Amino acid sequence: MSNLYSLPSEIRQLCRTSMLDTPTPGMALGFVQANLVVLPYSLAFEFLLFCQRNPKPCLILDVTEVGDYEPKIIAPGADIRTDLPRYRVFRHGELVEEITDISSFWRSDLVAFLVGCSFYFENAMLNSGLPVRHVEEEKNVPMYKTNIECIPTQKFSSPLVVSMRPLPANQVVRAVEVTSRYYKAHGSPVHIGSPDAIGIKELERPDYGDAVTVREGEVPVFWACGVTTQTAIFQAKPELAITHSPGHMFISDLKDEFLTF
Amino acid sequence: MSNLYSLPSEIRQLCRTSMLDTPTPGMALGFVQANLVVLPYSLAFEFLLFCQRNPKPCLILDVTEVGDYEPKIIAPGADIRTDLPRYRVFRHGELVEEITDISSFWRSDLVAFLVGCSFYFENAMLNSGLPVRHVEEEKNVPMYKTNIECIPTQKFSSPLVVSMRPLPANQVVRAVEVTSRYYKAHGSPVHIGSPDAIGIKELERPDYGDAVTVREGEVPVFWACGVTTQTAIFQAKPELAITHSPGHMFISDLKDEFLTF
Repeated sequence: MSNLYSLPSEIRQLCRTSMLDTPTPGMALGFVQANLVVLPYSLAFEFLLFCQRNPKPCLILDVTEVGDYEPKIIAPGADIRTDLPRYRVFRHGELVEEITDISSFWRSDLVAFLVGCSFYFENAMLNSGLPVRHVEEEKNVPMYKTNIECIPTQKFSSPLVVSMRPLPANQVVRAVEVTSRYYKAHGSPVHIGSPDAIGIKELERPDYGDAVTVREGEVPVFWACGVTTQTAIFQAKPELAITHSPGHMFISDLKDEFLTF
Repeated sequence: MSNLYSLPSEIRQLCRTSMLDTPTPGMALGFVQANLVVLPYSLAFEFLLFCQRNPKPCLILDVTEVGDYEPKIIAPGADIRTDLPRYRVFRHGELVEEITDISSFWRSDLVAFLVGCSFYFENAMLNSGLPVRHVEEEKNVPMYKTNIECIPTQKFSSPLVVSMRPLPANQVVRAVEVTSRYYKAHGSPVHIGSPDAIGIKELERPDYGDAVTVREGEVPVFWACGVTTQTAIFQAKPELAITHSPGHMFISDLKDEFLTF
C-alpha cells in the first residue's frame, strides 16, 4: 500500500489503530511533516526559548497547552500520543523504550512541541528540477554535527546539526533561491562548499543518516537540521523526554506552501 | 540635539544617565527598535507561546534569561532596567507608575521580552519612494483594534491590533512587496481596503495613536501591530508587568536588514 496520496488524517488514523508503524517520507505528499519533542512543563519555557533563538534548525510549528495532546493549530482533532508511527522514550538522556503509542507515559504536566523538518523544501527542489541525491539513492539524508554552536539557554545547548545535499556547481544559486522561500522550514542553506570550514572531517561518515554519492563537479550544500533539537535534549538530560523515532514523523494538515513567506 | 545618526549604545547611555527621556522614533536611524514586555517567570512560557502563535503582531527579537536584564542577542552589555527612555509599570492590568528607571522593581523571577515594531519597514517604504502619511504629518501612526482574534493560549488572548498607512491604489502592490521582506517585523499587510471588513468602524477615530489624512484615490492598508502584546497583557492582568512607554522604545544593535529574509 502506497500512502503517497493519502490525506494526513488517514495516515494518523492508521497510526492510531496500529495499522502503520513505518517511516513517513513520501506519505501524504504536499503536507507538512513534523518532528515531535515532548518535555515536562518545568523545561517548556527554556526549550521554547532555545528554539526561538535558533529558528533555522528548530522551527516551531505548534506547541500544545500544558497537559494537552492535541496540536490544535496544525492538526485539529489529532492526538500526538497515538498518531505517529513510532516513538522513542528517554529518561535522563538515555533511550529506554521504542514504542508505537505513548498514552501510558502521558502526564498532566507534559508539553508537546512540533518542529519543522526538511521534507517540504525537498519537494520544492524536485519541482524545480534540482537533484536530491538521497532521494535518488533511496537513502536517509546524511547529517553531520558541526563546529557551529547554537545560541544556548541555561539548560539547553547543542552544536548545529546540518543535512547535506550535493548539487552541480551551476545549480547552487538556484537551490538557495528555492529553499530560501521556506523560511518556516530551515530555509536557506547555512553553508556552501568546504565541509572542513564547519568542522566536518569526512563527508563519507555522517553522524546520522546515510552517506550519499558526491559526483565530480558537485558542491556539498548544508542546511540546518531539526535533529539539533534532539542533541540539545540529550545534553540537558531531562528526567523524561519523548520524541518521534527517526523518520517516523507527525503528518500535519498544513500544506507545504504554508511554510513560505 | 538630534540623535538621528547616534549609535544605539550612545542612545542607551543617555537613557541610563537620565539625559534622555523622549520618544525614540528617528533616533539611531537604521537600527532596530523594540517593544519591551517584562513579566514574572510564572507567565513566561505562556507569553512566549502566545507570541510564537501570533508572529505577525508579536515578533520576538530577544528574551532574557530568568532574572537577567541583559538582552545578550540584540544588544550585549545593555541593561533593560535603565536603557529605555521611559517605562510603564502595571499591577493586575492597571497602570500604577510611569518612570525612567525600573531598577527598584527588578526581581530575580522576571523575564524581559523584546518584541519587533514597525519602524524598520517604514524606512524601507520611504527608501522605495512610498508615502508614510503619519511621518509626513508628524503624527503617531493610527492603530485600531480589529475583529480578528489572535490565536489564544490559556492565559493570553487579544484582538489583533493593526496600524494603518494610506497608499495610492497604484502603489499598494509595491508596498506589499517591500514590507513582505521584513518577515521578522510584521512583514506583509494583514488587510487591504475596506476597514469595515476587519471590524473598524471609523478610520478617523483610531483606538491608539493619531488619525491621518486619507486622500481621494488612496486605499487604507493595515499591518499587524506590536501593541497587540500589550492588549494581551491587559487581558491577562498579571500581578506585575512592565512595558516601555508608547514610542519610548529600546534601541538594539541590530541593523534593519537583519529582519529580512
